Amino acid sequence: MEKMSHVVKKRKLDKSRQERLYFDSYTDVTIHEDMIADYVRTNTYRTAIMRNSELIRGKVVLDVGAGTGVLSIFCAQAGAKKVYAVEACSIAEEAVRIVRHNNLQDRVEVIRGTVETVDLPEPVEVIVSEWMGYALLHESMLNSVVYARDKWLKPGGLILPSKAELYIAPVCDPVVEDRLHFWYTVKEQYGVDMSCMSDFARRCIMNSDITVNFVSIEDVLSHPARFAELDLYTVTAEELRSVKGQFRCESFGSSAASGLCVYFTVTFSCPDKPLVLSTSPFKAETHWKQAVLYFDAPVRVVQDTAVAGEVSMYPSEDSARHVCIRVDYTIGEQKGQTKTFSIPDWSGEAQS
Amino acid sequence: MEKMSHVVKKRKLDKSRQERLYFDSYTDVTIHEDMIADYVRTNTYRTAIMRNSELIRGKVVLDVGAGTGVLSIFCAQAGAKKVYAVEACSIAEEAVRIVRHNNLQDRVEVIRGTVETVDLPEPVEVIVSEWMGYALLHESMLNSVVYARDKWLKPGGLILPSKAELYIAPVCDPVVEDRLHFWYTVKEQYGVDMSCMSDFARRCIMNSDITVNFVSIEDVLSHPARFAELDLYTVTAEELRSVKGQFRCESFGSSAASGLCVYFTVTFSCPDKPLVLSTSPFKAETHWKQAVLYFDAPVRVVQDTAVAGEVSMYPSEDSARHVCIRVDYTIGEQKGQTKTFSIPDWSGEAQS
Repeated sequence: MEKMSHVVKKRKLDKSRQERLYFDSYTDVTIHEDMIADYVRTNTYRTAIMRNSELIRGKVVLDVGAGTGVLSIFCAQAGAKKVYAVEACSIAEEAVRIVRHNNLQDRVEVIRGTVETVDLPEPVEVIVSEWMGYALLHESMLNSVVYARDKWLKPGGLILPSKAELYIAPVCDPVVEDRLHFWYTVKEQYGVDMSCMSDFARRCIMNSDITVNFVSIEDVLSHPARFAELDLYTVTAEELRSVKGQFRCESFGSSAASGLCVYFTVTFSCPDKPLVLSTSPFKAETHWKQAVLYFDAPVRVVQDTAVAGEVSMYPSEDSARHVCIRVDYTIGEQKGQTKTFSIPDWSGEAQS
Repeated sequence: MEKMSHVVKKRKLDKSRQERLYFDSYTDVTIHEDMIADYVRTNTYRTAIMRNSELIRGKVVLDVGAGTGVLSIFCAQAGAKKVYAVEACSIAEEAVRIVRHNNLQDRVEVIRGTVETVDLPEPVEVIVSEWMGYALLHESMLNSVVYARDKWLKPGGLILPSKAELYIAPVCDPVVEDRLHFWYTVKEQYGVDMSCMSDFARRCIMNSDITVNFVSIEDVLSHPARFAELDLYTVTAEELRSVKGQFRCESFGSSAASGLCVYFTVTFSCPDKPLVLSTSPFKAETHWKQAVLYFDAPVRVVQDTAVAGEVSMYPSEDSARHVCIRVDYTIGEQKGQTKTFSIPDWSGEAQS
């Protein structure tokens, strides 16, 4: 008897409970440890902030969802006159201690609350925020950045990062292949033929969950296609209610495609050249991993098979912080299909 | 932003919802895959059943919580005249297909329902059940075996397994040590001193959750002490409301003890010599791993430091299927402490 896994039921949560769960989820140290230990993430932000020190020096900065306050401290180190580190979770208490520990309490002010409700003493010249969720939009903190931009950023102010892009590519998943094959191996091991479980396994594994996992380079079956771009200076809350775009990928060669992989990049403008934080499977791993959307069953592709269609990302009706991804797609000559995915409500880290 | 982890809040669930969540949790294939793929588990049951074929041949068997029906099929293969495979989850539908696939539908009858409510056509001579949860008693399926024994087992009948034993030992956890140390390394990496987070990290990590994880042999700090034994022929539901016992361990050498590790064995009587299914850290890994109970902070021990006290395991007041473990302990000359642990309600697999 395996005991704890997968008690994952979808249901409606009332709004206040959703918010409470969302903010409570940041009171554990693991999340902050994973974020700080993610060198690609933290170092890219640090580098972007340092390279923009000309624009930050002597300025007022707002850090939206500051967490432990590390980005706020980077901004102070880059010369900011004042940084408002806005954080709704109780981790704000730790941020206060860290700021003081680094003797920056005169320049970094931690403000506990949501950016939608706090009152800043002044408008700001720079907004920095690490707002990206799984599949970019999960937990939709970008709405808070947009809100803060419209309310607090002076005209001509700087936003770090300033652009986000979404990509998609067909992938195969050898772990799924192995798991489906497993049931054919039971007879040899224990003398019981359990091969008829493979179909049940397929339905359980290739489900409608957005699966957050590392995709290996060799499992990406085509050049990724960019299907959406968001300009943080101009994007509106209304536009974020449906982020969509078309894609067309052509398979490198023969394989069993398990599904589609979605990932994102964000770009920081810098005086010399832009700096990109990428969560691509072709780049160094980040704690965001990739978002995998499984087909209902593996699909055979050969060289140049077209995998094409439209991706649409929007907030779940059940919980506005949860992202849904609808994909309308065709594979080669097959007739078009539609599948809608979401992140399980009570999910822990995906097992692999 | 890390997005999904640790939305783990304890709260009261109404009874019917608890039961529904419990049984729903077995509809996913992963759980069954983990159990069947656990060779120590499945092969020990298979061996025990085959070695008892003299007692099983021509007899009527009850499999309590049959899952995919694999143990029932082993019993049929060992010569049972009839096996009643009682299973409350929808996985029973797969068990029906597997039984038919193995052409045993005349001898293995899958009955969907709880053993407390189903009506068998006849009493049985053998009960087989794989009822063990994390820390042995989590999800307390042993109560169902006891109920089935009293209601359906003929006098002199066989129970497989027939004995369970619980062990405890102090352990160190280098992963926890690393995680607490991590916050001291941030300054070197990013130029921000976050060492003051270590105390918050300690409170989050060394909490009151029962942590299910693999303990390495070299991290066990003493000979394990057996603190409880359950005889499945005689144990009562009343006795299962509080399983407790004393222990005394003496440290092998100097170390920082992170907590206590609890594990179990179950024993099958066999005609020649008993067969033991062990989840000890000194034996091959099983999907049960070990249950780790962290102290509030690491404690220095040296050679022969006594770690002694009493363990008490009982069902949670919030959910009768959840186990609580209370430990009253002293370490060396320190004054006695008490800490009570439970398994988080919504937990996925423990991360490490």
